[in-house]
Amino acid sequence: MKEFDTIAAISTAVGNSGISIIRVSGDKALDVVDKIFVSKNNKSIKDMNSYTMRYGTIVSLKDRSVIDEVIVSYMKGPKSFTAEDVVEINCHGGAYPTKSVLEEVLKSGARIAEPGEFSKRAFLNGRVDLSQAEAIMDIINSKTEISMKSAVEQSKGKISSEITKLREKLLELIAHIEATVDYPEDDLEEMTGQKVSIELENILNEINMLIDTADEGKILREGLSTVIVGKPNVGKSSLLNLLLKEKRAIVTDIPGTTRDVIEEYINISGVPIKIVDTAGIRETEDEVEKIGVEKSKEKIEAADLIIFMVDSSKGIDSEDVEIINAIKSKKYIVLLNKCDIGKCTDKNQLSCLNEEYVINFSTKTGQGLNELKELIKELFFKGDISSKELIITNSRHKEALIKGKRSCEAALDALKNTDAIDLASIDIRNVWTYLGEITGDTLEEDLIDKIFKNFCLGK
Amino acid sequence: MKEFDTIAAISTAVGNSGISIIRVSGDKALDVVDKIFVSKNNKSIKDMNSYTMRYGTIVSLKDRSVIDEVIVSYMKGPKSFTAEDVVEINCHGGAYPTKSVLEEVLKSGARIAEPGEFSKRAFLNGRVDLSQAEAIMDIINSKTEISMKSAVEQSKGKISSEITKLREKLLELIAHIEATVDYPEDDLEEMTGQKVSIELENILNEINMLIDTADEGKILREGLSTVIVGKPNVGKSSLLNLLLKEKRAIVTDIPGTTRDVIEEYINISGVPIKIVDTAGIRETEDEVEKIGVEKSKEKIEAADLIIFMVDSSKGIDSEDVEIINAIKSKKYIVLLNKCDIGKCTDKNQLSCLNEEYVINFSTKTGQGLNELKELIKELFFKGDISSKELIITNSRHKEALIKGKRSCEAALDALKNTDAIDLASIDIRNVWTYLGEITGDTLEEDLIDKIFKNFCLGK
Repeated sequence: MKEFDTIAAISTAVGNSGISIIRVSGDKALDVVDKIFVSKNNKSIKDMNSYTMRYGTIVSLKDRSVIDEVIVSYMKGPKSFTAEDVVEINCHGGAYPTKSVLEEVLKSGARIAEPGEFSKRAFLNGRVDLSQAEAIMDIINSKTEISMKSAVEQSKGKISSEITKLREKLLELIAHIEATVDYPEDDLEEMTGQKVSIELENILNEINMLIDTADEGKILREGLSTVIVGKPNVGKSSLLNLLLKEKRAIVTDIPGTTRDVIEEYINISGVPIKIVDTAGIRETEDEVEKIGVEKSKEKIEAADLIIFMVDSSKGIDSEDVEIINAIKSKKYIVLLNKCDIGKCTDKNQLSCLNEEYVINFSTKTGQGLNELKELIKELFFKGDISSKELIITNSRHKEALIKGKRSCEAALDALKNTDAIDLASIDIRNVWTYLGEITGDTLEEDLIDKIFKNFCLGK
Repeated sequence: MKEFDTIAAISTAVGNSGISIIRVSGDKALDVVDKIFVSKNNKSIKDMNSYTMRYGTIVSLKDRSVIDEVIVSYMKGPKSFTAEDVVEINCHGGAYPTKSVLEEVLKSGARIAEPGEFSKRAFLNGRVDLSQAEAIMDIINSKTEISMKSAVEQSKGKISSEITKLREKLLELIAHIEATVDYPEDDLEEMTGQKVSIELENILNEINMLIDTADEGKILREGLSTVIVGKPNVGKSSLLNLLLKEKRAIVTDIPGTTRDVIEEYINISGVPIKIVDTAGIRETEDEVEKIGVEKSKEKIEAADLIIFMVDSSKGIDSEDVEIINAIKSKKYIVLLNKCDIGKCTDKNQLSCLNEEYVINFSTKTGQGLNELKELIKELFFKGDISSKELIITNSRHKEALIKGKRSCEAALDALKNTDAIDLASIDIRNVWTYLGEITGDTLEEDLIDKIFKNFCLGK
């Protein structure tokens, strides 16, 4: 294990809560905290067993005055989050107490941790690979059961082991080719080239299958950016209310959610639907109405999905037609609302829109809701997303896979021509390198730094 | 110890952080968590020792699928926050993971805790008294070192022991009087009445001394509501910037502070100064300017302290005079700013304002800053607040003390007249009851409920 200095940060969100945690990690974690921790029986914490806790107070390093009542817990490395010695101080929540305890820890010899530095240590110390570390942030940021489950699987190393298997196969192929190059007079040459090609085709298939999951994965991770459009009083708010009734509808209904979260998510069959509006879900309708058709068009352009609501008891007017023209080249779903109160709009009136994506709907009775959910799944997901084994959710991983795929294809081309077999070897090595970026094995240090800097503080 | 059901809640603030804590308290805490916790070696947590931790996963009660990677810790009652068995689950931070783990705990048999219910249990189980429980919330809400220190002292039982001592003395006095009433023919009567009076005078003195600290205590706890007024460009923003340079200037500079905090505090010699403006400190100047003199007057009326800034290089105009008239009956400090650039305003120009509260100031050089701090202390604090032993910060405690004081005075009146000595006994018993409200010994159950309901969730 490498040696680093001892770092500390607040690992919980800060607000008026019962408890906050200050995490301290590094060789000197126990020493640092021991300087300012006083237990009831005045015993040093240096003799603490791993995975035990002790009750006491944090005192001022300077004058030993009591700062807060705390419980410290100790996890001896390598069996800790960072694989280093970790001491966690559970103090009272609230900005001031938390900050006061952290300050005393810093005075006692720890350095303030950068965002993501604990996770970076876990990576640098070999406890997790890069994709596992990234998955931890995905768990924290997850919006629905499926997105969390996928992140948890990734954190357990599911993607890593798949990538590692592929890279081992690639190394074998490189060995094959090098044997061929080293003994060109041998008769086996062409056959080996063919064998390598077959193996490489298999690997390319697996890479392609992973890339194929990435669009779905991106939606799971970032949400399906959705705009609900339609004229005033067509029922847009009622639709939102209907969707909100679903279990776990809003992620942000826990008191104390930080103000950073300006995006609202609703959950349709496990798919996080990001409602595109900074003013919050409830105001969406007014907002869209206020800014008119022009502004709506801008939002439509940027969205993954448009839900266009029409009052089916009324006809289609020029304003609707304008919206129809704006959405026809995008992924859209048309809801013919108010079906319950009589004649539904003739679908032919919707001119150029695909009838498949038009649903008779009623926000009042709930008619069409299941159809809407099915349609979203159909539009964005190939099959049942919740049953999929492995999903690429991270665009960085997708990019690495695509680069790998291209090198794979180049290698296959080269293998068709026995003169270029050296080139194939280089391309295959590139595939191996690109896939290694996912697990962090072949990534430059500054790129790794950049990735961890996007993590939240205290993780 | 009383028996309660097992409760659970999120005890950390919720936001995109590394860790969240779900606290479970009650007889069945271990049973509840055991149903959904899987450790690496599949061992039940029921054999865990108190003050130890275990690493593992929380799984779905229904299908045993992994929900999150966690560390559980166990504190066996009565050596726990609630004095009951407490299990804490440290899971990943973020709204969704935290909520998911909490939901599984609730499915496994715990009930969601009400705000303050953990603290209420600590009180009902006799681990802390009411004033100690209240102090915990004061620690969490504290704004400066002194306010936190005072809350920590209170949480350790400093007020409680003082109150308990007074109440014991009161009980002794009641016994004295009752002896006098029971044996009226005895010769000792008058002397005893006199002795009781002397004792009671002492108690009254101590109550008065406590009440005397309450105004200062309120400021420590709630901040000194302060308005900075003055014409445009007089230097109000510069004053704020100057004050903000102080160490620990803003309490809310930790990322992730919840959106509930709309008040901004600066710290002057340990006194939390609440700047009265919902739009945030930096906009104060513009805001005050925008709304004009009328609106300023309203704010002046509601404030504890007005800091009035005058440009000393210019004269006093009618607008200034209007402000002068508005503040003269309040506590105010006048800063003659821009003293560094030449002639200072003749203090006589400030007509009816007290010269004692006028300071030659420069936001540029810092001239007058120490004088300002001293003046604030002088205006609001009798002596050095940081060295005071016991400060009443809670208005509920102050009210109880005032009621106690009145009954004390009534008893002293009654004792002057030997015919009314029974009445004195009743009054003294009232003092005893009122003081008991502070520690919660004599408070009605519904009032206790009401107090704890104001606590934050998870505490």
